[in-house]
Amino acid sequence: MPDQQTIRDGEQSVETDHPTDAALRFIGRINTPWRRRADCPRQGRPDGPECTIEIFEPWGPALRGLERYDRIEVLYWLHHSRRDLVLQNPAHDGQLFGTFALRSPVRPNPIGTAMVSLVALQGLLLTVRGLDCLDGTPLVDIKPDRCAFSPKAPPKPGS
Amino acid sequence: MPDQQTIRDGEQSVETDHPTDAALRFIGRINTPWRRRADCPRQGRPDGPECTIEIFEPWGPALRGLERYDRIEVLYWLHHSRRDLVLQNPAHDGQLFGTFALRSPVRPNPIGTAMVSLVALQGLLLTVRGLDCLDGTPLVDIKPDRCAFSPKAPPKPGS
Repeated sequence: MPDQQTIRDGEQSVETDHPTDAALRFIGRINTPWRRRADCPRQGRPDGPECTIEIFEPWGPALRGLERYDRIEVLYWLHHSRRDLVLQNPAHDGQLFGTFALRSPVRPNPIGTAMVSLVALQGLLLTVRGLDCLDGTPLVDIKPDRCAFSPKAPPKPGS
Repeated sequence: MPDQQTIRDGEQSVETDHPTDAALRFIGRINTPWRRRADCPRQGRPDGPECTIEIFEPWGPALRGLERYDRIEVLYWLHHSRRDLVLQNPAHDGQLFGTFALRSPVRPNPIGTAMVSLVALQGLLLTVRGLDCLDGTPLVDIKPDRCAFSPKAPPKPGS
């Protein structure tokens, strides 16, 4: 659902219906230091601040074994984003990019993905580094960074 | 919604309501050689077969500039997966893992993510390598592998 955010020069929105092809359930809440979008880093950094992820029941048992991983993938719902822009002017300089050529939160299905470092896992609370989203962002999924049946590897260089 | 898939020894499901905290719209269709789940590779490989991704209108203009990227992230909906398992027995050997410690398609929000090589982009059709999903899988999102405003980098070693 588009919100009241302004469209910048040249940006293009499309008319869309609002189908529910699939329904997401929020499974947790992400706590970060960033309360306004303007404060969020453009991309998470491995040396960024510690953030916490709180898992809601009944999903607690699904965390079993996650502590074996140094790096995990986090999927979250960018709940303040409009969904109807196909062209965006991200640098405010008139240069237009297609939405799929950007990692902007504004997209048809505003799902963010981040590979983060798992610092600690205690009960239903994960501590991680590497996020870039707003405080209060709804959690959609957590996965290891690689298939469970490959051997444990060190973090990839540059990742 | 759980389907009729069998639960293996020790696996644990939970009672969940089925809220629609957020609604996804499918924005395309993924075409792969794999017609049955048993045929899908466990994880996509950079030297895997070419697959195509068809983008539905009105999202075509959102592809502008994507051709600058060698690697893109693909998000898709694992439409045949049950959503209520918290513990899984993936190797059929009695060893149980939490759902969040697996990249299994069975999860509360069955969204798959893959980093793939972009081989070609023509009109509304992308050709990629590195997918592992079923033919006909609904597309949810496409993003570049990194922030648009970082310099163009070669593919990461080992990724």
